[in-house]
Amino acid sequence: MNGDSKELISIAIDAMGGDNAPQSEIAGALEAIQENDDIHIILVGNEAVIQKELKKHLLYDKKKISIHHCREVIEMKESPTEALKKKQDSSILVGLRLQKEKKADAFISIGNTGAVMAATLLTLGRIANVSRPTIGESFPTDEGLSIVLDIGANVDCKPVHLLEFAIMGVVYATHVFGVTNPRVALLNVGEEETKGDTLASEAYQLLKKSNINFIGNIEGGDILRGKAEVIVCDGFVGNVILKFTESIMTVLKNKFTKYASEGIYHKMQVDMMYGILKRILKDFDYEEYGGVPLLGVNGISFIGHGSSSPKAIKTMITKVKRMYRAQINEEIQSKIKDIKEFTLK
Amino acid sequence: MNGDSKELISIAIDAMGGDNAPQSEIAGALEAIQENDDIHIILVGNEAVIQKELKKHLLYDKKKISIHHCREVIEMKESPTEALKKKQDSSILVGLRLQKEKKADAFISIGNTGAVMAATLLTLGRIANVSRPTIGESFPTDEGLSIVLDIGANVDCKPVHLLEFAIMGVVYATHVFGVTNPRVALLNVGEEETKGDTLASEAYQLLKKSNINFIGNIEGGDILRGKAEVIVCDGFVGNVILKFTESIMTVLKNKFTKYASEGIYHKMQVDMMYGILKRILKDFDYEEYGGVPLLGVNGISFIGHGSSSPKAIKTMITKVKRMYRAQINEEIQSKIKDIKEFTLK
Repeated sequence: MNGDSKELISIAIDAMGGDNAPQSEIAGALEAIQENDDIHIILVGNEAVIQKELKKHLLYDKKKISIHHCREVIEMKESPTEALKKKQDSSILVGLRLQKEKKADAFISIGNTGAVMAATLLTLGRIANVSRPTIGESFPTDEGLSIVLDIGANVDCKPVHLLEFAIMGVVYATHVFGVTNPRVALLNVGEEETKGDTLASEAYQLLKKSNINFIGNIEGGDILRGKAEVIVCDGFVGNVILKFTESIMTVLKNKFTKYASEGIYHKMQVDMMYGILKRILKDFDYEEYGGVPLLGVNGISFIGHGSSSPKAIKTMITKVKRMYRAQINEEIQSKIKDIKEFTLK
Repeated sequence: MNGDSKELISIAIDAMGGDNAPQSEIAGALEAIQENDDIHIILVGNEAVIQKELKKHLLYDKKKISIHHCREVIEMKESPTEALKKKQDSSILVGLRLQKEKKADAFISIGNTGAVMAATLLTLGRIANVSRPTIGESFPTDEGLSIVLDIGANVDCKPVHLLEFAIMGVVYATHVFGVTNPRVALLNVGEEETKGDTLASEAYQLLKKSNINFIGNIEGGDILRGKAEVIVCDGFVGNVILKFTESIMTVLKNKFTKYASEGIYHKMQVDMMYGILKRILKDFDYEEYGGVPLLGVNGISFIGHGSSSPKAIKTMITKVKRMYRAQINEEIQSKIKDIKEFTLK
């Protein structure tokens, strides 16, 4: 299959992964096929369970949904390595194999993140020229979205890895965010060229030499300010920032709940504020963004939060469709080859 | 002087450093002497300017305030290294020299952070056995306060540095937060012992071998959850997290302002919410905490935000008083000696 826009895209969805599986997965898939006439969804998981859930929905185009049965499920708490060895017939492995066998064009799971990552690398492998596949998370900014990568797939990175993350981020931001010539920044502890640890200062020089639109260093306080569409860092830093951000919404919610519990007047105040708060804080709700792409692998693998809503599932489906239509992997492969020849000599 | 609680503590304050200098510095100092009968404040800076500001305040104990004149001021935007070379008679250098000459017991500045750090190391030097002095920032948690260190003084840390940060954090949390046997955690990308980059996994082993109250790894999402009073990490990660946190309040404020600007009804809603929001978000207001300690130096040097309010200045004064009374430097010196002998053999 190629990126021709008239052709049907076949997307395999792990129907068994999420906190409310298969409810959110199926509801999201059905919303997506209603809005997109060029996709076909393969629900991967226990057929009986999926059928039972599908029966709750009456009005949908049955030709656009199929079920691929498998017996096993990798639970959230399981160790990825062990689970993948033991559960060869799990929805994650089976769903990814469909892509390997050219029966699907993309895979989405909101199950065990570590297992999806490991299974993707195992099943699809890396794109030629990519040293380390990466996961990026979208952050809301004053001017749209930024992708921060890596957010935890890679620690102890070398400068060349950050250069590769930058290229993969540029290709993603171009086609999924729809930004022309995305600005790339290096996350650092100061703006000056010489700032930072050994990794950052060496990566700065590589990025500067490359022909990407590198705008220099940005600090932690700039991530949400929309200075760049692509922000690169070691996965250790990215992971800490991502998890910290996610916790802030919980902390704020707890504070409002506590305030509301202090008396009927407080409760009334918070109730009155609820709608505005929800609207104002919506940008920080990771549900809205619909998951993270695993970039640099030979295929398309998208990972969402276990608690993803049907809307988040639908958003992920739209994103993988864009990635597939734009043939981003072909572009990543050739850009990384070019830039390595250009930069590293 | 020693830590005897009847003896007067002499605290030198850089009166010229902050965004509204010397207004906040002087107002804060006067509040502090009113509440603490065992402190004397030396205002360091241009005597005429300080006198003029002091004249606005009528009712204060004039014996508890003195002025130490100096001619120069290091501006916020100046490069620390160059400024310190050029401005030998600056309030930062002069204020710190008072401690070196035993004319003051502590120093506080809300001026150029880099200059205060460099000047402190230059003037006071390191405590014996401490490889790298560190800066820690307090974070609000569900259960009180945590100190995260390092937050930017040190990048490319080695495992032993994180062990030293842990000890300095423990001594600080014990005496300034008033916590018995503070829990220490290592900031990491997962909870398991083997997680993380080379630094984190090696530091884990050192911390585990030591006799501090080490509770293991915590993730970015746990920083605000009160799992530990002392959280150690490389200064690169700490700095990114700190600046990211500071930016979140600005982003939220901007969102509310934007919402309010969309019409008179929105403005009324936001106005009504203002008081509650202020109370709920107060915990995230770094103004409240009153600055960060530079730990591991031969003396006491405390650094605050340029925009510190008089209340923040007063809080800093209270903190340096506690640090001095508890003789934390003697404790840091002996604990680091003990633990290095115990852990590193």
